[in-house]
Amino acid sequence: MGGYASTMSSMVLPENKKAKGSSSQINHAYLLTASEVATQIRAGTMTVEEYARSLLRRIDDRDSAVKAWAYIDKKYVIEQAKALDKVPFANRGPLHGVPVAVKDVIYTKDMPTQHGSPIHEGDFPKIDADSIAILRKAGVLILGKTNTTEFAATTIGGVTCNPHDPLRTPGGSSSGTGAAIGDFQAPIGLGTQTGGSTIRPASFNGVYALKPTWNSISREGQKFYALIFDTLGLYARSVDDLDLLADAFALADDEESAFAGVQGARFAVCKTMAWNEAGPGTVKALQRATELLRSHGARVDEIELPPEFNDLPELHETALFAEGRVTFLSPYRVAKDLLSPFLAEHVENPYPISRKQQLAAFDKMAALRPKFDEIASHYDAVLVPSVPDEAPVGHEFTGNAIFCAIWSALHVPVVNIPGFQGEHGMPIGVSLVAPRYYDRHLLKVSKAVGPIFEAEGGWKRKNVPVIDVGPADGF
Amino acid sequence: MGGYASTMSSMVLPENKKAKGSSSQINHAYLLTASEVATQIRAGTMTVEEYARSLLRRIDDRDSAVKAWAYIDKKYVIEQAKALDKVPFANRGPLHGVPVAVKDVIYTKDMPTQHGSPIHEGDFPKIDADSIAILRKAGVLILGKTNTTEFAATTIGGVTCNPHDPLRTPGGSSSGTGAAIGDFQAPIGLGTQTGGSTIRPASFNGVYALKPTWNSISREGQKFYALIFDTLGLYARSVDDLDLLADAFALADDEESAFAGVQGARFAVCKTMAWNEAGPGTVKALQRATELLRSHGARVDEIELPPEFNDLPELHETALFAEGRVTFLSPYRVAKDLLSPFLAEHVENPYPISRKQQLAAFDKMAALRPKFDEIASHYDAVLVPSVPDEAPVGHEFTGNAIFCAIWSALHVPVVNIPGFQGEHGMPIGVSLVAPRYYDRHLLKVSKAVGPIFEAEGGWKRKNVPVIDVGPADGF
Repeated sequence: MGGYASTMSSMVLPENKKAKGSSSQINHAYLLTASEVATQIRAGTMTVEEYARSLLRRIDDRDSAVKAWAYIDKKYVIEQAKALDKVPFANRGPLHGVPVAVKDVIYTKDMPTQHGSPIHEGDFPKIDADSIAILRKAGVLILGKTNTTEFAATTIGGVTCNPHDPLRTPGGSSSGTGAAIGDFQAPIGLGTQTGGSTIRPASFNGVYALKPTWNSISREGQKFYALIFDTLGLYARSVDDLDLLADAFALADDEESAFAGVQGARFAVCKTMAWNEAGPGTVKALQRATELLRSHGARVDEIELPPEFNDLPELHETALFAEGRVTFLSPYRVAKDLLSPFLAEHVENPYPISRKQQLAAFDKMAALRPKFDEIASHYDAVLVPSVPDEAPVGHEFTGNAIFCAIWSALHVPVVNIPGFQGEHGMPIGVSLVAPRYYDRHLLKVSKAVGPIFEAEGGWKRKNVPVIDVGPADGF
Repeated sequence: MGGYASTMSSMVLPENKKAKGSSSQINHAYLLTASEVATQIRAGTMTVEEYARSLLRRIDDRDSAVKAWAYIDKKYVIEQAKALDKVPFANRGPLHGVPVAVKDVIYTKDMPTQHGSPIHEGDFPKIDADSIAILRKAGVLILGKTNTTEFAATTIGGVTCNPHDPLRTPGGSSSGTGAAIGDFQAPIGLGTQTGGSTIRPASFNGVYALKPTWNSISREGQKFYALIFDTLGLYARSVDDLDLLADAFALADDEESAFAGVQGARFAVCKTMAWNEAGPGTVKALQRATELLRSHGARVDEIELPPEFNDLPELHETALFAEGRVTFLSPYRVAKDLLSPFLAEHVENPYPISRKQQLAAFDKMAALRPKFDEIASHYDAVLVPSVPDEAPVGHEFTGNAIFCAIWSALHVPVVNIPGFQGEHGMPIGVSLVAPRYYDRHLLKVSKAVGPIFEAEGGWKRKNVPVIDVGPADGF
């Protein structure tokens, strides 16, 4: 990650050259991380417009293969970029000019929000989600809306392809954001997670993602599935970039992390009660990750969660369906024919989940949360699988979320770290988790662990950038 | 309640007279309950327009005294009414033509939504909350938007006056809906509750309200304060009307209630850990309510919650402020100067609530919920105070929510039942509560208890309708 980005950034923008968009070199700015972009824009060595044009060229080159976008208006992107370039430096926010890819279940007042649902085709409510309002105030450029599975609630794939192999799924439900970040079409992006909708696409596309502690970022203006799990998810190609987003959203632990590096750190590795779902890629990735932590001087204890945690996947599913019964009543009543049978079933509740079962699931998960916090508090982080394996072939099914659902249920922060690969050379990530509200600590740990896994985990990005030396485009 | 409505309904609309708007009698249709309105519209004995015109006349007469509305477009009301009258009878929903007053923190695609905040003055996002979409599909006429305290989150009163004494507060934060229903300006309405924002105005304005089980109705499109408490609240002047709304929102218990009437029923009365906040009006109301249940043949046990419940008001407040820290970050960042200092403080967290304290509050409340369900399951309902006393004089302070916050924290359904009065003749309600997801059972119990409290509790409505025999208005 760091690899490409830092190499390219020094190559792209020598100090003495403030390119004005027609430079062949500027066209590779899309390889930068958000932190690098922000720094260069702040330093005046690159304009917002130059960077935006570079991204738009990248999107032009790659969109037919990846199809990440539900909506992008290139002229409007340039308009926004020009406006941002006119803002006096003294008035700029910390993310000034940094483009963000936004999952299309998050309201944006200047773009349609269609929820991956025919019911909302063309819908354009003039309202910003809280997350968008906060990011705009920090100076970002909202690049466009990315494809999502229907209401971020099904595993039925859409048009988006995995940038590392277009015959495979990018995962879901944050399909477009995961693919766009993985394909250098945007430096950072927003997704959501109710089961595994942020971490799974991160793993499949070979990028970083943070699913923060539940309700630590306002989810107002973000489509509902199950209130007690739904969380905004943050995507990037570096942990520094996740940190920038965490700053913007005022994520704060009680105390600053004392983590001082992998050498001497204490990790747990937990295969979880879902381990029988792990395929060869994940088995190998978790093993390799454990070895790498140890070889870099960390102690890694293999732990098993107490038996009372064994029901977590079922508890999550019970609560998910029970809350979906409430969430999808409105589209069910208004336009049942346009709702997928899977979501209609939530409302019809044909294999009835009783209120008693629903409450038992809700209450049991609540009781397990502090217990997991206590267990995890003995470690700098707990290493866990992100997904069963590399992204499956095909676009119909976006993959199994079981490994992520555990942490969604427990409300804890999770970071996907890329670096490993499956039997077909596709990326596989592993996750680090920490107790609730140790998000910043977890990012600090991830910042140390990430480069190790990326350098020695075995997976290298194969979507090498197109070297484009053509003239500036006509956006 | 029942009293007026049934008297007037037969007076207003004799079978042989399908009035066409100019009848002097039709002008009193505003006294009907929603159930009566729905029945008459269904029977063809009253048009939607006739009823709407009656309400608009009432609003014209009373608006300068009560000031319940943040937005109402009378011409548009009539347009909607006319359109509804054109819908073939076979295509009509169960609430066809019934007007609804909507708290102005709930999005309506055809009216502004301003959240009682100068930040959102004039905002008109073209989107319906799930609750609105569901009600429209059931055939309602969205009458207008009612005043709310800022973001439904402060106790700073606005312009709305208590219809029973304009020098007093209508309560908050659902000030306008509570006052409009209490003043016959609408038959049913929507509010919200995070602490006591539905039940308190219901008590102060002498009407019924249901705060349903948490997350039993989709809250999508309803402003956030604290996710773990926020609930849509339903207002009416009869329990039958609350039942209609409960049907529309598909509220369903596991089993049909076996409650067979007050005679032989078993109630608990619980003064709660906040009893030292009760003033003379509430002390007397709870005592009288207990006596009435007993005199009608019920057994009423006085119960005390176990000591572990004593912290509930503090736990609620801790979680409230901690979640407000997330909720109000967006307006704080975007327009801090337009945010009240109380809400800015949520974000600044000056008397810091640590993450540890926040999680302890969250987890302790979660652990108490099934315990209260168990306690309440031994009774047909638990009788509790709604408010400390009658509505206080003045409009600056909308009242103390402590008695309601307990049940908001426990997620249980609550029905306010009017019928009692304070030392100054103002209405005071008492509440019935039940375990989570016993909402329909609780309504059934309330349907039996309500008429007793209304008939014998001592309070009678003093805002006797204006007898208006003038010509039809010009809307």
